Amino acid sequence: MKSDRPLARAPRGFIDRRARDLGAERTIVERIVPVYERYGFEALETGALEYADALGKFLPDADRPNEGVFALQDDDGEWMALRYDLTAPLARFAAANWDGLPKPFRRYAVGTVWRNEKPGPGRFREFVQCDADTVGSARPESDAEVIALMAEGLEAIGLPRGQAVVKINSRRLMNGLLATAGVTDAGQTLGVLRAVDKLDRLGLEGVKLLLGEGRKDESGAFTKGAGLQAAAIDRVLAFVSAGSEGRSETLDRLANVIGGSAEGDAGLEELGRIHQALTALGVGADRAVFDPAIVRGLEYYTGAVFEAELLLETLDEKGQPVRFGSLGGGGRYDDLVARFTGEQVPATGCSFGVSRLAAALRAAGRDPAAEQRGPVVVIAFDQARMADYFAIAGELRAAGIAAEVYLGGSGMKAQMKYADRRLSPAAVIVGEDELAAGTVTIKDLDLGRELASKVADNAAWRAERPGQQSLPRAELIPAIRRILDARA
Amino acid sequence: MKSDRPLARAPRGFIDRRARDLGAERTIVERIVPVYERYGFEALETGALEYADALGKFLPDADRPNEGVFALQDDDGEWMALRYDLTAPLARFAAANWDGLPKPFRRYAVGTVWRNEKPGPGRFREFVQCDADTVGSARPESDAEVIALMAEGLEAIGLPRGQAVVKINSRRLMNGLLATAGVTDAGQTLGVLRAVDKLDRLGLEGVKLLLGEGRKDESGAFTKGAGLQAAAIDRVLAFVSAGSEGRSETLDRLANVIGGSAEGDAGLEELGRIHQALTALGVGADRAVFDPAIVRGLEYYTGAVFEAELLLETLDEKGQPVRFGSLGGGGRYDDLVARFTGEQVPATGCSFGVSRLAAALRAAGRDPAAEQRGPVVVIAFDQARMADYFAIAGELRAAGIAAEVYLGGSGMKAQMKYADRRLSPAAVIVGEDELAAGTVTIKDLDLGRELASKVADNAAWRAERPGQQSLPRAELIPAIRRILDARA
Repeated sequence: MKSDRPLARAPRGFIDRRARDLGAERTIVERIVPVYERYGFEALETGALEYADALGKFLPDADRPNEGVFALQDDDGEWMALRYDLTAPLARFAAANWDGLPKPFRRYAVGTVWRNEKPGPGRFREFVQCDADTVGSARPESDAEVIALMAEGLEAIGLPRGQAVVKINSRRLMNGLLATAGVTDAGQTLGVLRAVDKLDRLGLEGVKLLLGEGRKDESGAFTKGAGLQAAAIDRVLAFVSAGSEGRSETLDRLANVIGGSAEGDAGLEELGRIHQALTALGVGADRAVFDPAIVRGLEYYTGAVFEAELLLETLDEKGQPVRFGSLGGGGRYDDLVARFTGEQVPATGCSFGVSRLAAALRAAGRDPAAEQRGPVVVIAFDQARMADYFAIAGELRAAGIAAEVYLGGSGMKAQMKYADRRLSPAAVIVGEDELAAGTVTIKDLDLGRELASKVADNAAWRAERPGQQSLPRAELIPAIRRILDARA
Repeated sequence: MKSDRPLARAPRGFIDRRARDLGAERTIVERIVPVYERYGFEALETGALEYADALGKFLPDADRPNEGVFALQDDDGEWMALRYDLTAPLARFAAANWDGLPKPFRRYAVGTVWRNEKPGPGRFREFVQCDADTVGSARPESDAEVIALMAEGLEAIGLPRGQAVVKINSRRLMNGLLATAGVTDAGQTLGVLRAVDKLDRLGLEGVKLLLGEGRKDESGAFTKGAGLQAAAIDRVLAFVSAGSEGRSETLDRLANVIGGSAEGDAGLEELGRIHQALTALGVGADRAVFDPAIVRGLEYYTGAVFEAELLLETLDEKGQPVRFGSLGGGGRYDDLVARFTGEQVPATGCSFGVSRLAAALRAAGRDPAAEQRGPVVVIAFDQARMADYFAIAGELRAAGIAAEVYLGGSGMKAQMKYADRRLSPAAVIVGEDELAAGTVTIKDLDLGRELASKVADNAAWRAERPGQQSLPRAELIPAIRRILDARA
């Protein structure tokens, strides 16, 4: 007989997150939002659902064409969808309110987004993004400001300088390269972009093959190349190799490759102004560099493109070193508002994935939530004395200390185990003896856990009751404070 | 010709919220979450979508039967829906993870919920709730704790004691009343509940009519009554009138009406223990009272029911006094986890609507976001000097002061207007003169706004340039700080 009870499970690709993970993400948001505000960005929150036509189909990752949205029909027949990023709703908001907004309009947003993708390990269909965008400024300086904000945000969340960098490229540079290399065919353009995107993995030799006839990998599989001539290939290779420690040097090298083409010169001028503004903001090449090999997002953005990367070498589950990859990105998109109004409104911005930042901090050994603590647990020793236990919990809370009375139905041993599982710093025990003597017994559970991890013979030290002390009732709060401070 | 451009509009019932509203709500969450944590509740966040069968149909408001959810089908054919509250997902989570959880399991959650209702003025289909629940404790003391938490939460967000109260009733009391009044028919039961729910609006006389044959309102419309006999009506009226300033007195009066019935006695015992725990927690009758006339939610909950109310008299748009109504509520629900597992797991909890709390604070004249400030705006006076302006903005930010360089394309006048609309405290102007002399000019916009609201002759005071000062570059930060501190 089949049960008609529903199964207790979350939909595929959706997860439940408990205090530890949430603590890390909350800390990240609490640290990054003040940076956004210091840069003059104001908060905006739009709804989770948008009309499907207003969202459009602008998912930034061109390599995942089957990406979709979660769509549903309203009772009046209109199609709505859960937002897949925070940029499309911003464009809709800006178009709807343009006349009444202070211009340029700077807004930041922290919000959940949803992607109707195939879920997999570590690949979720719901996550929180943390964006900052300036709408209404065509100045490259507004790109520079977003880049500076990203660099400062990464430091603010706890990644030390040198462990992360913002890489900058421009669609105009790439257009200049394609023009000077004589690439006009759309298929060939895509081939060039794909080849450049593999620089990290295949190196210059591999990219060279992919720009030409093609490349056979270790498994013997052959990837057809873009079919460029030797001179064009050299130009592309010189372009992607132009990245250097210094931003001015990179610009100089790039000028040698693509200078003279209209789009190339425009891109160089754009990056030149970004460089100057970054320098004025005190953001050196240790925090933001030009990297002409950055391709991701170039199809989506209309000008400069930014990508924040963790420089730290990280290990996968098998202990193998892996590239951590992108922490977030952004760029200039001058066409998004025009979708609604027909009038072009320049815009630029960035987006961080909050759980991605949390993973980066963990990889860097700087998990802000590593020190999760539970409440002090007042043991329900004597059912007739619950009022006393509530008074003790109330007193602790009034002193700003998280506390609770055990409210289950189990005995002492299970209660102590409960307190331990909650990562309680201490348990408070008040029985008849304590009530008669006006005392309380406090068990230092932090110490208990510390000893348990060190001592081989558990039974022996348990018998000694380490960290257990009886003291006058009036000394409860200071004693708990000492326990909390000892591991603060 | 029809444009193929999408309309820039949010779906019906969804709103965009800007800094001011968000600031108030963020402050409320920042103030209430520490209260939840001090009570030992741990954070949990579940996904926005749940399988539709897991959510079930448990919307608490029985008077709106057409309330629905936003549902959609996953690509494997399963129906999912956006959560309509945070309790149903908690029940699903608890059922799925019961064996591994510390028990009782206390969790709090701050999250968006969605209701597919007909939108209207002030009636949205998306809002944020802020819940705390204890799963796995049948003790009335766990109800008391939730009530104390609600009372403390209301104070923490900024409602002074006396302006709000938590009203407590119990389904068991009402069952006891129905038993002693001899009401067994389901239709008559509903009639009694509906009549009692109108006590606030119609008074005892009106309720009496609705309990009997029926009542004709001012417009002449007749509402059929529950058809109770005179003795039963008297009992119901004595029951709903039993509420008093003191909790013990209310219990004594209720005992006179419903004492002796099994359910009534169980309810009295339950409320008696809640009263004792509240007293031990220092929560007096000025913050939590028994009110047998509370009916909302009785059909949904299985035991005690709580409702937080604003006591302040508020005015509607026409200046008429109105009841502000509920700020939040909760109660005991012992059946929700059993839906999944078949095993009953007792649970109790509460929920606040965050925008509802924000509205209450506004009504009480205690809007936490009343003092919204914009960034200092560095005027883009001379295009060739942008690097200097960026350096100034960077310096202000490094000092913890929100600042931005104007990045639009407009002239001085529009830039000052922009700064004013951003509610900037000050504008910083650096032209050739200032650069040559090593000075900056600061315009105190706070002062400007203050004077503008007082002075009739705008042109005259503008000519005098009040609040404008030139000072050495090194004195910039202290001068801005003085302006900020003057209105802090």
